[in-house]
Amino acid sequence: MPLPTIEWEGDISGRVRLIDQTLLPTELKFVYCEDIKSMWHAIKTLMVRGAPAIGIAAAMGVVLGIKDIHAKNTDAFLKELKQATTYLGTSRPTAVNLFWGLARMERVAQENKGKSVQEIKEILLHEALKIQNEDKVICRQIGENGVGLIKDGSGILTHCNAGGLATADYGTALAVLFKAKEQGKRIAVYADETRPLLQGARLTAWELLHAVIDVTLICDSMAAHVMKLGKVQCVIVGADRIAANGDTANKIGTFGVSILAKEHGIPFYVAAPVSTFDLTIKSGDEIPIEERSPEEITNGFGKKTAPEGIKVFNPAFDVTPAKNITAIITEKGVIQKPSVENIRRILG
Amino acid sequence: MPLPTIEWEGDISGRVRLIDQTLLPTELKFVYCEDIKSMWHAIKTLMVRGAPAIGIAAAMGVVLGIKDIHAKNTDAFLKELKQATTYLGTSRPTAVNLFWGLARMERVAQENKGKSVQEIKEILLHEALKIQNEDKVICRQIGENGVGLIKDGSGILTHCNAGGLATADYGTALAVLFKAKEQGKRIAVYADETRPLLQGARLTAWELLHAVIDVTLICDSMAAHVMKLGKVQCVIVGADRIAANGDTANKIGTFGVSILAKEHGIPFYVAAPVSTFDLTIKSGDEIPIEERSPEEITNGFGKKTAPEGIKVFNPAFDVTPAKNITAIITEKGVIQKPSVENIRRILG
Repeated sequence: MPLPTIEWEGDISGRVRLIDQTLLPTELKFVYCEDIKSMWHAIKTLMVRGAPAIGIAAAMGVVLGIKDIHAKNTDAFLKELKQATTYLGTSRPTAVNLFWGLARMERVAQENKGKSVQEIKEILLHEALKIQNEDKVICRQIGENGVGLIKDGSGILTHCNAGGLATADYGTALAVLFKAKEQGKRIAVYADETRPLLQGARLTAWELLHAVIDVTLICDSMAAHVMKLGKVQCVIVGADRIAANGDTANKIGTFGVSILAKEHGIPFYVAAPVSTFDLTIKSGDEIPIEERSPEEITNGFGKKTAPEGIKVFNPAFDVTPAKNITAIITEKGVIQKPSVENIRRILG
Repeated sequence: MPLPTIEWEGDISGRVRLIDQTLLPTELKFVYCEDIKSMWHAIKTLMVRGAPAIGIAAAMGVVLGIKDIHAKNTDAFLKELKQATTYLGTSRPTAVNLFWGLARMERVAQENKGKSVQEIKEILLHEALKIQNEDKVICRQIGENGVGLIKDGSGILTHCNAGGLATADYGTALAVLFKAKEQGKRIAVYADETRPLLQGARLTAWELLHAVIDVTLICDSMAAHVMKLGKVQCVIVGADRIAANGDTANKIGTFGVSILAKEHGIPFYVAAPVSTFDLTIKSGDEIPIEERSPEEITNGFGKKTAPEGIKVFNPAFDVTPAKNITAIITEKGVIQKPSVENIRRILG
C-alpha cells in the first residue's frame, strides 16, 4: 500500500497532511495545511497534484475554509461556504475533479441546511473523508477492470503520473500496472519524464521503482523511437477532464503520444474515475487549458537554461481526441471506442 | 554574421578556439584545444556540436594530432595520421560529417605522399581551413535554396540546433530562416527545447533572439498542441546522417515531430549539406544510434530529478523515414520527395 498523498489529521478543528510532491524523488517531506489559503497554495503549486487527489484536496480544503466560521445562522454559513468553494476553484482551471469535489461539498451542505452550523461542519468533514475512501475503492476497481488489457510480457508506455501519489491510494493508470504485477504478469514500463515539471521522472519512476516494477525512464522526445524499436505494446495514461464525446484533457504531451501510438498501431488507453467526466461539455474544444509560468521551462532544473528575455508558451494540458483513444478504463467498466453513446452506456 | 563556433589560431603549430556550447546561453566562453585529446574531449562532451561543425572540428583535430609528429619518413607519418583519424572517429558514432572530415584529410595526405612531412602538414592545415570556408559558402547556399519554401507570415517549428553554432557560419535549418528574415518575410519560430541537453532552449533560442527573429520556446511535448492550434506552417530541422534512400538521422525527437507534422498536414523539411549524405548505406536501419550517459536525463543541469537506481534509455538520435520528409534542402538544390532516384538526381 503506497504512503497516502493526503490525510486529514484530527477532528473538525484538525488539519491536512500532504506529501510535498514538488520535492520528490530526492526528499519525502510532509506539509501541513491548517487553513484554506495554504491548501489553495498547495494545489496551485502542485504540492498536491493528480486529478483524483485534487478532488480530495478540494473537499478537505473546504473543511479548512469553514472550520473556523462562527456564522449566526445557516444562511450566513452557506454564504461563507460559497466563498470558500469559489476561492478554491481559482487554483487550477483544467482538472474537473476540483470542481466536482467542490460541487459535492456544496450539495451536501445544501441538503443539510436544516441542521445547525456545527452539525453541517461535521457532515462536511465526513463527506471529505468519504470522497477519499471512495477514491480508494475506485482505484482498486480501475485496476481490476483494466488488467485484462495488459498482456503478459508487454512493454507499456505512460506519460506524467497517474499513480498512488495522484489519488487516495493506488492510482488510475498505474493501478492497472500494479494489478498486473499482482497477477504475476511480466511488464516493462517506459516512463516519459514529462517536461516541464518531470512528474514522470520524479513521481512515476519513484512509485514503480518502489513497487519493484521494471521501469525505464526516457525523455518525452524518445517515445516515438522506443515505439519504433517494438518495445511498446500499449500506452496507458490518466486524465484531468473527459468531455461527453470522449475527448480527454491530460498532461501536455499526451496528445502527441496518442498520435505516435496510432502511427505505430499501438492501443492507447486512458484510465480515470467517473468523476473525471464532464458531461456538460460536448467536446474537448470547450476544456480550458491552463497556462503556467515561463520559469517552469526556462529555470526548470534550478539553473537557467534559456536566454534572458525569451518568449515562452507553457500550456499545462492538451486534448487527445476520442478517435485516438482505444478505450477508457473506469471503475464502472471499460469504455471501448469512446463516443457519446458508448460513454453513456457505461456511465449510465 | 554570427560569432564563429570554431577557429584555427596561428600557423601549423597553432591551436583551435571553440565556443563552449555546453555553457550557453548563460555564459559565452571560449575553450582552446592545443592537442588532439582535448579536441576528442570537446567533440565527445558536445562543447562543439552540430554535424557540419563536427566535420570542421574533426579536420582541425587531425591537424592538432599531426602537428608535433617527427616522423622519419612519409610512410611513418601516414601511419601516425591514420592513428589520429581512428582515434577521433571514436568520439561520436552517428554524425557522418565526422567520418567525412577524417576521410577527406586522409585522402589529401595520400594524394600528397610524394611531398615532405612538413609540406604535408601544411597541406592538411590548408585543407581544414578549406573545409571551414566551404561550409560558409554551403550555409549561404542552403539558405538561398530553402527560402522559397518559407511563406510570408509562417509559423515554423524547429528541433535541436541547426544554426550558426552548428556550422562554420550561418547554419543549415536556421540558414533558411536567417535568409527569410533578410528578405523581409515575417516568420514566427517555435523552438523545441530538445531534451535532454536542451540545444533548442540554450542555442537555437539564443541565436534567433540575437538575430531579432520572433521565437517562442516550448517543451518537446508541446509540439503537437502547438500544431493543433494552427501555429505551425512548416517544420525545418538539420540532419546528422542521411542514407541513400533519404532516411535521416537527427537529434532524438525529430522522428516524433515528423509524425506529428504528417498528422497535421504540415510540410517537414530537412536542411543539410551534401556531406551529410552517406550513400554507402541503403536505409536508416544501418545508421548506428549513439547512446549517451543516463546522467544527461537524471541530472539535467546539476539537480537530481529522478530516483536513485532508475534505469534509463538515452538514445541521442532517431531516424526519420524518407516518407515523412517533404523535401531535403542542400547547397546543390532542393530534393523533393526524397528517394534514391531523386537524391541521385540532385547530388549527381
